[in-house]
Parts: sequence; structure tokens; C-alpha cells
Amino acid sequence: MLGQKRIRDYGVKIGRLDTGNLNSITDLGGVTVGHVTLSNKEIQTGVTAIVPHQGNIFRDKLIASSYVINGFGKTIGTIQIEELGTLETPIILTNTLSIGTAADALIEHMLDHNPEIGRSTGSVNPIICECNDMLLNDIRGRFITKEHVIKALSNASSEFKEGTVGAGTGMLCYSLKGGIGTSSRLMPMEHGTYTMGVLVLSNFGILSDLKINGKAVGEELRDAINISYEEKNKGSIIIIAGTDLPVSERQLNRIIKRVVTGLSRTGSIITNGSGEVVIGFTTATKIPHEKTSQCHLVSMIHEEDMDLAFRAIGEATEEAVLNSLVTATHVVGRNGNERPALKDLIKKSNIEIAK
Amino acid sequence: MLGQKRIRDYGVKIGRLDTGNLNSITDLGGVTVGHVTLSNKEIQTGVTAIVPHQGNIFRDKLIASSYVINGFGKTIGTIQIEELGTLETPIILTNTLSIGTAADALIEHMLDHNPEIGRSTGSVNPIICECNDMLLNDIRGRFITKEHVIKALSNASSEFKEGTVGAGTGMLCYSLKGGIGTSSRLMPMEHGTYTMGVLVLSNFGILSDLKINGKAVGEELRDAINISYEEKNKGSIIIIAGTDLPVSERQLNRIIKRVVTGLSRTGSIITNGSGEVVIGFTTATKIPHEKTSQCHLVSMIHEEDMDLAFRAIGEATEEAVLNSLVTATHVVGRNGNERPALKDLIKKSNIEIAK
Amino acid sequence: MLGQKRIRDYGVKIGRLDTGNLNSITDLGGVTVGHVTLSNKEIQTGVTAIVPHQGNIFRDKLIASSYVINGFGKTIGTIQIEELGTLETPIILTNTLSIGTAADALIEHMLDHNPEIGRSTGSVNPIICECNDMLLNDIRGRFITKEHVIKALSNASSEFKEGTVGAGTGMLCYSLKGGIGTSSRLMPMEHGTYTMGVLVLSNFGILSDLKINGKAVGEELRDAINISYEEKNKGSIIIIAGTDLPVSERQLNRIIKRVVTGLSRTGSIITNGSGEVVIGFTTATKIPHEKTSQCHLVSMIHEEDMDLAFRAIGEATEEAVLNSLVTATHVVGRNGNERPALKDLIKKSNIEIAK
Amino acid sequence: MLGQKRIRDYGVKIGRLDTGNLNSITDLGGVTVGHVTLSNKEIQTGVTAIVPHQGNIFRDKLIASSYVINGFGKTIGTIQIEELGTLETPIILTNTLSIGTAADALIEHMLDHNPEIGRSTGSVNPIICECNDMLLNDIRGRFITKEHVIKALSNASSEFKEGTVGAGTGMLCYSLKGGIGTSSRLMPMEHGTYTMGVLVLSNFGILSDLKINGKAVGEELRDAINISYEEKNKGSIIIIAGTDLPVSERQLNRIIKRVVTGLSRTGSIITNGSGEVVIGFTTATKIPHEKTSQCHLVSMIHEEDMDLAFRAIGEATEEAVLNSLVTATHVVGRNGNERPALKDLIKKSNIEIAK
Repeated sequence: MLGQKRIRDYGVKIGRLDTGNLNSITDLGGVTVGHVTLSNKEIQTGVTAIVPHQGNIFRDKLIASSYVINGFGKTIGTIQIEELGTLETPIILTNTLSIGTAADALIEHMLDHNPEIGRSTGSVNPIICECNDMLLNDIRGRFITKEHVIKALSNASSEFKEGTVGAGTGMLCYSLKGGIGTSSRLMPMEHGTYTMGVLVLSNFGILSDLKINGKAVGEELRDAINISYEEKNKGSIIIIAGTDLPVSERQLNRIIKRVVTGLSRTGSIITNGSGEVVIGFTTATKIPHEKTSQCHLVSMIHEEDMDLAFRAIGEATEEAVLNSLVTATHVVGRNGNERPALKDLIKKSNIEIAK
Repeated sequence: MLGQKRIRDYGVKIGRLDTGNLNSITDLGGVTVGHVTLSNKEIQTGVTAIVPHQGNIFRDKLIASSYVINGFGKTIGTIQIEELGTLETPIILTNTLSIGTAADALIEHMLDHNPEIGRSTGSVNPIICECNDMLLNDIRGRFITKEHVIKALSNASSEFKEGTVGAGTGMLCYSLKGGIGTSSRLMPMEHGTYTMGVLVLSNFGILSDLKINGKAVGEELRDAINISYEEKNKGSIIIIAGTDLPVSERQLNRIIKRVVTGLSRTGSIITNGSGEVVIGFTTATKIPHEKTSQCHLVSMIHEEDMDLAFRAIGEATEEAVLNSLVTATHVVGRNGNERPALKDLIKKSNIEIAK
Repeated sequence: MLGQKRIRDYGVKIGRLDTGNLNSITDLGGVTVGHVTLSNKEIQTGVTAIVPHQGNIFRDKLIASSYVINGFGKTIGTIQIEELGTLETPIILTNTLSIGTAADALIEHMLDHNPEIGRSTGSVNPIICECNDMLLNDIRGRFITKEHVIKALSNASSEFKEGTVGAGTGMLCYSLKGGIGTSSRLMPMEHGTYTMGVLVLSNFGILSDLKINGKAVGEELRDAINISYEEKNKGSIIIIAGTDLPVSERQLNRIIKRVVTGLSRTGSIITNGSGEVVIGFTTATKIPHEKTSQCHLVSMIHEEDMDLAFRAIGEATEEAVLNSLVTATHVVGRNGNERPALKDLIKKSNIEIAK
Repeated sequence: MLGQKRIRDYGVKIGRLDTGNLNSITDLGGVTVGHVTLSNKEIQTGVTAIVPHQGNIFRDKLIASSYVINGFGKTIGTIQIEELGTLETPIILTNTLSIGTAADALIEHMLDHNPEIGRSTGSVNPIICECNDMLLNDIRGRFITKEHVIKALSNASSEFKEGTVGAGTGMLCYSLKGGIGTSSRLMPMEHGTYTMGVLVLSNFGILSDLKINGKAVGEELRDAINISYEEKNKGSIIIIAGTDLPVSERQLNRIIKRVVTGLSRTGSIITNGSGEVVIGFTTATKIPHEKTSQCHLVSMIHEEDMDLAFRAIGEATEEAVLNSLVTATHVVGRNGNERPALKDLIKKSNIEIAK
């Protein structure tokens, strides 16, 4: 978005479903994304905020679910999502050692907007996700402040940058620069056309494993370009999936588990050191915070309608990872550590990435 | 029921909520229970069938959930309940080594009533639960036939016996005779009064641990009566919980996890060798087997209404276990092995079980 | 094996790790596989037995784990595997409506070999996995008998057929004939070289999704060949993973969850109707049935050694699926329903499946 | 401890197993507990730190497991415990809205002691648990600072106070003052005598439900004393369980799930709004952070030895909750809200709590 050249602009078309208008998680009405980027020598980090709807999310919660692909990670807030099936705050992405600060900032933000928390009603469940950007960023410096988190929230917009930005500033993917990527798919069903949007914070994989739409581009690049560093298969990926499909929390969980199909098709083997977590929400139903005197009605698709959602999230995840790679820019960070940008390598190597 | 003296008839009142009319899982409209009892020397076993509604449950499924308290057990069918959140067959209880026969019989029963299975639609997910009755029953003999299972299904009625009957024929509980027990609770809410029904197949615990409404009756009995056998803490318990509360599968799962409160108050420590499994369903919502062109609506209570359900299922479980104990009769089975009936011990010992 | 042309014989090499000697789950010393095949007009079904070691597996259990990729399935026995972390019987694969018979047969087999079950020790936990072969097989006929199961166990050998054989006789995969496939990988580590073996019963997917080593062979075939039937995305896959790697049940669970990477790379989107279940075991450690007076020692690799196992299981799964497809033969079954064999289509279409 | 009158001093003896020397989680060699207490008018909160061993826990991790009884809570760090089965930091307890600060402080503490984190090795997984003390404490004020957390860690000792102290300062339990409580049990086995220690932060329940060793003391107190406030069933409980039993993470998980037996016997129905989380660890095995060239050996008890551990944790949990109640003192806090101390009510009402 915002003028960046994305994977489709290279002639790579993932899957068979149509994308939404922006090919972004923000194709879901009301969803916005904001970044704060810190990029200055050994400081290469940031914050990305995903705002799931523009009302008061604490009072009008969304049906939500989380799924841990690999739990070598520090994501905060999944216990309550699993128990209650609802999301009641925006989602904050940042670096691993800043999760405490980010949680504190998000709590403060929620207190500011909901004076009843801790008085006439209980507490609030902040959602913080993270990846480790220690190669390029001096992560021990913990440069993220509460103000950065609040700013990312207020920056949120339906158009936003991908790649080396926000929480993605210092991240690596397939031994190259990674970061933020997004994509979406439309799901035409008998009872309406729905949208599946995915946003990733990519930080995993080694170059030799990278596949673009089935093509072993990673191996070709590795052979074409002399990479001067040892490939280490650490890192992680955070995947935020939003939809407007009317689904229960169980159905949503089934859907978000399918991100692994898209992830795997980019070449991932889901390594030990990789914290891989999915947070999913649907904007189709709002669950009121306050007890109601009547039961509420939740609209659910029939289980046989699920296959389209499974296909959509797989395609959108695969494309979001590729977008995160191909929009990222070359970064030199801590100790002069650096990682190249896929787009520069493509240009340099003359490798054809679309088959 | 059916003239049996139950725990309330001894002056023991568990909890504070009112019971349903029959104080039985069958207080839920449409739920019926049937037994086949085999009791002849070394044959002390049987089948109990729970029919969740009187229509075609394959075509009109119920929202369901399962919960494994302790997985040293062989219950069949929980994988699909967890994935799809529905129950599509009656539930069969029997002895551990007869689960294959019971599954085959229930499949046959479903095929007979649904000619489209395996033709125009897929397969069916039979639910079979079990406990091990090897002390009193020659379990290796595998005396249960398919006909017994079919007969238990056709025997099903809203009034049924507890104790030494059906699948409970050869079971032990707190070193005494156990077996089938049931109880129910009413849940008055703003939007209606609902019922929680529990049926147990009890087969766990040692006498010294038995508590009746907080009173250490087990210790008193152990001291009063010379028990000539070593107490072994094996066995298991199956708990079937039905309700007409409008809940999602997630909410239902939260509810059925609370059976442990009642179970624990009877004295259970949930031993290693004890297969303890709960199957829950709600009759409030029917999920159509065939794909619909529209979404369907599921009615859900607000999460803050849940506490009453939590209290209800704990009380009903505690009372159902006590009913299974106090209605059971003395049995002499395989190799002359025997276990006394609690009601006989109460009479003999003059111990006051109601405080 | 046994003279069949496998995917490597077509020039397709999956991944980068070396295979074991047979490129089979039976590269694990002591593991054997046996089939019984019923193929006669509307009867197209069978049984496959996997024997994890040649001793008494009830008395010397293996550390095991199960993982449900998608729970629209009827696999029996996972509750106890998850609770106790052990496998105590062979594993039987068959069609969905024969699970009761198969369970009963496996129980009988275990009773025959272990006279103490149900007498001086408790019961036994049979493992039965299934897929639905209703298109080619008259599944309502339930032609599998206990004798077939016993015969499959006694047929077990370290060399065995793939494709249209045993439980795979009537299965479909990517709209073509599927069935049994296997593959293995070697894992050289500092402390030894270990083997990962995978066996699949494939019964999922639609042709247009099929990918062979990244190439969209399914789309090419669909365009080249006039397929006269509607593609339906039902079915399932059972994956049995054996290794001799010293791992705990937690570690084994982490490993078997990675089968999705290989599965996804063949094109799967893990559809709603597809029962997908993995059973994993390690032969590295035997857990004694009888209580010991001392603690036992379990050898575990360091968590950082896991990545090689993750890569191995992904590669072996991908190749096992492809082997199940390419070794299968054309079958005409129930009602004249038929599905072509991939190997025939390759020949007919002149499509190059190796890039 | 430290001169406080505990539940045994009132003649109440829970269960049949012997306690350790201090009847405390610190009966486990090397475990220490430290508090920081903030008590001044509307500030009624604090921090409690549990240090699992006195070495470098990041480099020598402990086998650990977590269990969510009810997930209406914000505990941080369980995803990684479940994936890797290890604990690598001390455990911090505090109020709900201070979890971000506590996480940041614990990260800082770990960075200070491990200069390689974020440089030559990855990140660290802080464990923060919480309950909501908003009735007595001005929780929106977020008075906990990083210094308080560091101080609690440095205060840690094998003898420590219970009741209205540390994170327990503002907590309620059964409508009375709750807070910190601890207890332990000895487990004599053939191969050694082991210890099970439990520490609770209690903040749940309503008075009418309170049972002391089976006696309905809560009902008696409610009738004897005019309670001027409405009982609200919110809150939560955090349970930390330590042992020196040689167990795998799977076995440890089985053990910690049994805390519900003790919890239930104090009267809990595990309400909707109650975040109830258990963190368990064993000091029997240390898992090295750095990759080793050899496999490591983990000593495990036989599964049949587990029953003693199940009994031990149930008894210790029940007693720890009662200790938290009976050692707590009357507190007047925010807005003049107050809750009485059980020990004062016992004295005032002359109710006999030991039967």
C-alpha cells in the first residue's frame, strides 16, 4: 500500500480467490493499523497497533480466538481469549523485551477510555504480541516507551506501510529483511460476500527454504548471491487474522489454525525457536460487556461453508508473508549487522520470481 | 426413581438450588435413559443408553462438548465433538472391553435410521463411554452383544432405575457398590428457568475418602465395619450432563469442567487409574445436518449468567454420585468377589449420614 | 517398495535430508506393517496394521503422542495417549464404519497375548484410525471382520505395498486414487543418527490443488484431462509417525504437529470434512507396564536439536502423500464409481512432474 | 509462619499426609518467597516473588507446567511453559493492572543477571500472575513500580508471612480478607520421600460457600454475624505448586490439575469472573539452557506412583487456602471499603471451626 511495490506487482498471484480492495486486513470495515518506527543505528525497532473496530471495543467486544503454532513466544492475553472467546482491546505488536511496557501502555490507554474499569467493573485483558529483533536492534536497550504505544494507536489508519516499519523495523525473514505484510481475500457465499484479512509480523526462516508460489527462489538466490552470514533459523511470526464472517469462537479457531497451510507454502518448517501465534477476530458480532437481561443471538455459518474460509486464510497468509519480504528495505543496525532486502536481490540477481 | 430410596430420602440435601421434578437428567424434556442388565454369577455388567432428544439426532444435532478430567479411559467420539461442537448420536455406556461392540452396534442403529449415511452424506460419530467392572464381572468374557445395545436404546424412558443396573451393574465406588446415579437442578434466570441434569456411572474412590455433604462418612464406616478387602483406588467415572440452557459449545465446555467441584466434595482425589470423562449437551439449539442457505442463529446467555450453571452442575454431580452409591445393592460376582451396598452398611452401622 | 514405482523414481526429490534404506516407516528397526485388501466390485476396503515393536508392547510401552489436525474423524484411543504419553497396542487403520469391529478385534488380540488384562491388571487402550471410502466402497456393508484385523497384524512385515492396498484400497486423494504411502528421513545429530518414518492413509483434497514439489501439477492435469466427475473436497488423512529419536511425549507432540508443513506443500487446505489425525511414537524408550520400585530414566534430546526432526517429518510426510498417490492403481467400485491413478494420468498426459 | 496462628493451630487438620517442616512451599530446598507490601489508605496492594531455586534459573531451568482452571485472568508466560516445559525465571504475583510493570521489572532483573540475553542467546519468558484487588485497593492508581518487584525478589527467604501481605494485601476470599497462604505435604515412596509445596494468592468465593474441613462454617458465620455488604462472587486464585518429585512435564501437568480437589473442598464453585491459574515446577531436574552435545536424562516416577502426589497437592491446596484466610487481618481500604478477618469473626462468634 501507499505506493509500495507488492508481490502481485512482480507478477506473483497466490491462490485463486479475489483480494479485497486494498488487499489488506483493513479491507475489513473499521479495522485500522498504526505504526511507530524507531530506526537509528543500533535502534531498529517499533510498535504496530491493530484496532479491530472504531467503537469502544471494551464495551462492545468481538468474538475472538487464538492459536499457538509454536509456543516459544511471549504473547500476552491468550488465556482470557480462549476462556471467554472475546477480544476487548486493540492488539499491540512490538519486540520481545518490550512486552511489559507495551502491556502497561495498553492498560493505561484502556483505563483512559473506560473510567469504570477497576471501579464498577473488573479489569481489562491487553493483547501484546512480539518477535525478537535482536540481530539488528539493541533489544536490551528497550527503547519502546508507553508513548510509542499510544502513538501507534493514534496513528492507526486504513492505509499503512508494509515491510521495514513499526514492529517490523528490525525483523528478519528467510535470512532477509522481513517485517509487516498484509493481504486479504473475498469469500462469496450464498448469504453474502465476506472478507478475510491477514496481517503478519514476519521474523522466521532461512533463505534456502524460501518458496514463492512453489518456486524454490530461496535456493536460487542463495546460489546466485554470496551471502556472507550464517543462516540461523530463529525468530517467529505473529499473524493477526480478521474477518467479517459470522462465526462462533470455535469456528474462528478452526479457521485460524489453517494459517499453517499458507505459512508452510512459503517454506517454513516451524522451527523450535520460533514463537508463532495467531490472534483472530470477527467483526460480525459484538458481545456486550454489560450483562443483558436477555440472551444474545450469534449468527453462525453452516460448517460446510468453512472450506472457503480455510482457503482464504491460507492464501492471505502466504501472500502477507511474501508482501512483508518484498516491501522490506535493506537495514544496517546493531554492531553493523545487516540483512538485505528481497527486492534488491531480485533486481541484482535477475532471478524471475514469477513462474 | 421408580421407588428407590435416594440420598435425599436419608435427609441429605446437597447445595442450595432446587431440583427438577424427578431430580434426574430426564427432567430435561425429551431426554430418556434405558438399561440392559446382565447379572448372573461371574457376569455382572450391562449397557446404559442416554437418548438426548426424541427426534432424529443425526439430522438435528445438539450443541455438545466433552471434557477429560483424567484420560486413563477409552471413551470413543470426543475428537469430533470438540472439533464440530455437536452430538449426533445417543450416548452408550458399558464396560471397557465392550467398547468395540458398542460402537459397532450404535453405528448399525444409526445406519438403520439414516439410510443416507455412507451414500449421499458422510459417516457418523458414535459416542461410547466406559468404566472397568473387572472385579465383579468377568470382563474378558465380553458378554455385551450388539443386541444388548439396541435393546438399551429401545428401553429408554424418562423414568429409570439407579444403582446396580445397566452399565452400572458391576461397578464400584468408594470401595462399595456403585453404578448409575442421577440428579438435577433448576436455574432461575431473568430470561427463563432452565434445568441442569447429570447422570453418572460411578466406579472410583476408596472408602476412607468418602464424604457425604462434608461429613467423613467413609472414615466412620471404615472404623465401624470390618472390611475384609484391600482398598484399591482404580476405576473411573463417566458423567453425562444435559441442559436446556442456551449456550455455545465454549460456554458448555466451561460448565462441564465444573463437575470436578461436586466430584471433589464426595471425596475424590481423581486417581491415576481412573478414566474420568464428561460429555455435555444442550437441548436449547438444534444444528441442522444439511447445509443451509442462510446462517443460523444460536442463542447464548451472557457470560455473567454462567455462575448459576456452575453451581448447578457441581451440586447435581455431587448428588448423582451419592445417589449411585445409596441405591446400589450388594453384589457377589466373579470369583466370589463382592462389594457391600452403602444402604446396608448404613443400616448395620447405625451411622447418621445426614448431619 | 516391493517393485512399485515411487515418486523418486519419477525424478521428484522432496527436501534435502537423506532417506532411510527402504524410504519407509519400517526403516525403524522393529516396525512392521501388514495389509488385508478386500477388492471385489462394490467391496473396496481393507485393513492396515502398524506394529511399533516386535516385543510385547502392552508390557513394554512406547512413548507416544497424538495430534488432531482436524477432528472431523473417529479415531479411537487418543484420550489415553495424551494422558499417559504411551502406546500399548499396534495401530489399526480401516474404513470409518468398521472402527467398532476393528476395536473389538484389537482388544481380542491383546487379551489373547496378555492373559493378565482384566484379571490382575486393568484394561487396554486400542488405537484405531479411519478414513471414509464410501465413494468406491459400499461402506454400509461393513465387510471388515475381526479375522481381517487379526490377519493384517499377522501379515505385518518390514516390506509392504503402497497405494491401493489394505485400508487404502478404496481411498481417494486429490480426486485421484489415494491410499497407503510411506517415506523416511535420516537425522544426523552429534549424539547419533536417527530415523523419522511416516506412513499415511491418504483420502483428501481436490485435483486442482495438487502440487508436486511446488509445481501445480493438479491444475495442469485438470486442464489436460477431461475429468467427468465433480471434485468434492471431503475425506481425510491418517498419519503415523515413528522415530527412534530420544524424546519426551511433549517433544514428540511438537514434532508430529509439524506434519502440516509437508501436507500443506502437497496442496492441502485441510478442509472441514477431512478427519486428519497424527499418531506418533518413539522406539527410543520403553515404559514398563508394571510399577517399578525405582524411577525410570528417559533420554531426551536438547530442544535445539528439534529443528532437524521438524524438517524430517515435514519432508517425509510430503513424500509419503506423493507415494500414496503415485503407487495407487485405477479402481472401479461401488455403482461403477471410479477414480483414475496418477501414474496413468502422467503417462497419458505427458506432463512432466519433476521440474 | 513467623509466629502467625495458622489453621492447624485452630485444631483443623486437613487430610492424612504429614506436612513438611515449615508446612510451606519453602520446605522444598532452595525455594524462597519475598514480599513487598503497600498498605496506606486507598493503597492496599503489593508484590510477592517466588524464587524456585537459588542458582541461575535462566541457565538451569526447571521442568514446569501450567494449568488454567478458569481463564478469566491475565497471567503472563504460560504459552512458553506449555511448549517447552520449562521455567526460566522467578514467578511474580501482583495486582491485575500492574502486570505490565511487573513483566518489565522481571525482564530487567533477568537481563541484569544474564548479559547474554538479547546478545548471544535469545530472549526470556517472564512469569507474572495476578488477582484483582480493586475493592480495597485503588487499582487504577497502579502503585507498583519496578523497584517494588526487584525488592520482593531480593526479600525472598525460606520463612515468610501469610495473609495480608505482598500481593495478598488487598485480596478477598469467601467475602473475608484473603491473600497469601501456603502448606506442604510429604510423599513417602519406595525410592525416596518427596515434598509437595503449595502457595496461593486467594481472592475468590462468597462467605456462604466456605467450608472448613467439610464443615459449613461460612453459613454459620453468615447467620451469626450481620454482614453489611453484598457478597460478590468475583476474584480469582493463583496457585504455585513446587515439588522435588522426579516427573516429566506431562506428569507435572497431571498433578497440578488436581489442585481443584482441594479448592473445591473449601467451597469453591469456580465462578465465571475468577481467574484461576496454576504454575507448577519440579526441582528434581535441571534443564540446561545451552545445547548439549549429548542427550540429557530425566528421571520419572512410574505412573502408579502418581496417586500420592495427587492426594498431596489436593490437601496442600485446601490447607493453603485456609491458611490464607485465617492469617489475614482486617483491612479498611479504598473508599472506606473493608473486609473482616476470619480470625476476628471466629473469636467474635464463638463458632467452633474444628469439628
